[in-house]
Amino acid sequence: MNAEPQPARVGRTSPYPSRLPEGSSERFLSRDVPTVWTEGAAGPLEARELAHFAKEGFHASPSFFAPADVAAMQIELEAQLAWARANADDPRVILEPGSDAVRSIFAVHETSERFAGLARDPRLLGLARQILGDEVYLHQTRLNLKPGFDGKEFWWHSDFETWHHEDGMPTMRCFSCVVALSEITEHNGPVMFVPGSHQTFVSCVGETPDANHERSLRAQTIGVPSREAIATLVERHGLVAPKGPAGTVILFDCNLMHGSGGNVTPLPRHHLFFVYNAMSNRVGPPYSARHPRPEHIATRTKITPLIDAS
Amino acid sequence: MNAEPQPARVGRTSPYPSRLPEGSSERFLSRDVPTVWTEGAAGPLEARELAHFAKEGFHASPSFFAPADVAAMQIELEAQLAWARANADDPRVILEPGSDAVRSIFAVHETSERFAGLARDPRLLGLARQILGDEVYLHQTRLNLKPGFDGKEFWWHSDFETWHHEDGMPTMRCFSCVVALSEITEHNGPVMFVPGSHQTFVSCVGETPDANHERSLRAQTIGVPSREAIATLVERHGLVAPKGPAGTVILFDCNLMHGSGGNVTPLPRHHLFFVYNAMSNRVGPPYSARHPRPEHIATRTKITPLIDAS
Repeated sequence: MNAEPQPARVGRTSPYPSRLPEGSSERFLSRDVPTVWTEGAAGPLEARELAHFAKEGFHASPSFFAPADVAAMQIELEAQLAWARANADDPRVILEPGSDAVRSIFAVHETSERFAGLARDPRLLGLARQILGDEVYLHQTRLNLKPGFDGKEFWWHSDFETWHHEDGMPTMRCFSCVVALSEITEHNGPVMFVPGSHQTFVSCVGETPDANHERSLRAQTIGVPSREAIATLVERHGLVAPKGPAGTVILFDCNLMHGSGGNVTPLPRHHLFFVYNAMSNRVGPPYSARHPRPEHIATRTKITPLIDAS
Repeated sequence: MNAEPQPARVGRTSPYPSRLPEGSSERFLSRDVPTVWTEGAAGPLEARELAHFAKEGFHASPSFFAPADVAAMQIELEAQLAWARANADDPRVILEPGSDAVRSIFAVHETSERFAGLARDPRLLGLARQILGDEVYLHQTRLNLKPGFDGKEFWWHSDFETWHHEDGMPTMRCFSCVVALSEITEHNGPVMFVPGSHQTFVSCVGETPDANHERSLRAQTIGVPSREAIATLVERHGLVAPKGPAGTVILFDCNLMHGSGGNVTPLPRHHLFFVYNAMSNRVGPPYSARHPRPEHIATRTKITPLIDAS
């Protein structure tokens, strides 16, 4: 990993080069911006929790939402899933590779009033503002479904690598909030984090094809580190998979390396994702793609600061 | 699950009917034989460990083998794997479905003196005799390989269902001994048990095609319970996946429902299996197959009681 990579040929010059031409060498770059953008600011997280998020790149809060709230979310999940099955050709609906099962539904804050309201839950927004030190907006929302017996894997990746190169997100002032809509156990394909890996940006080899998202959301092959790079990170940092009952909330930094296995158990693993981005970190032109991804995958024109739901 | 299933049409009448004609209903039968066949007999397991094995159907002993012993086993594993790659058309070598990766190597007690000796380790034989209350022989041995990144799942099944119907094993007086040749973590596709499920025999629907093992060892589709049956068992009993460093030993009853997911981590999960059967439980004609499986999968002609390695 010594050769000097060339910046991607398409788009703006990036401080985090990736999508390098074939034959380039991967490179590990040290993060040059904070993970927690406030210092001692009041908010829902205690100082030790903020310190953990800064060091490990994630925070897990089991049973964040009460059972009654979760039950309502699960009903909404079923409604969204019914809609998606009936509208499988809607661009927001992503099917599993090689099957008609629904893998993801994007932009649920547009198709679901309940989820749109949940994204503005004052406690979640409090977390987001405390970590990002700014007003925030939703860069992306989605449901990731991993049904019992059939749930498929998500390959290792840093979200920021894609959000930077395909969406034009300037820097790592953004995180994902997972709301677990089913119990997360060690068995049913939990998200695995490489804790601390958010401090390293991995420059990936492989240029961005046009309309890459049409493939990458089913099975990502561009913007993913080599097996050697993943093995190196796991050897350095290990792996951790937070668990908890439905209603658990997990926050993780946009540059944290993560992935998950399939699900052969009867127990579904359904996650609702809200991606909070700092207003000051709003997207510009992509760094490595000819065309930005569509609005339902990466908010571009509808950027407005979120206001607490009443 | 109420209709009376017909006994399989091929082979002997079975006390554990399975391989039922299409259209039959699955049935849950209560186990009618012990799990631990001695009472208070002296042996390596303490009374509470024996009681746990009887109740849950498994016993895990982390770090059973010392690191130096494990290192020698890992070298032998590499040698066996090199042999298998060079002899991929040997019937003992099973490849992954849709790839040239080695999934399993059968009859390693024949191809490896070291593993043959290990199967006669006095401590392992002590465990086997204590649980089975008899002299024991090797019904089957194999390496199950689950390499980092690429390791594939093993679908839910009871070994006894196959060993009874395809191999003619009379009753549940048999267990598997896993020797972990790599660390077992929650992340790299550990074997998951449905604890206590060994008390239930699930009659499966689907008759046995000729030479079923040529397919089933890559991906089992015959002799597996329905999804509903698996979900029922998991709802009743939960799931548990023992972990431990390389050198860990896990014993589990022949009728314990188990399976495992794929492995997307960089960490391999390689298991050596010794299947100990009671001499009094030696196999006869199959209950539901026209022809017995070959000797390298199910010992039939070379049945001799194991003698402690010196």
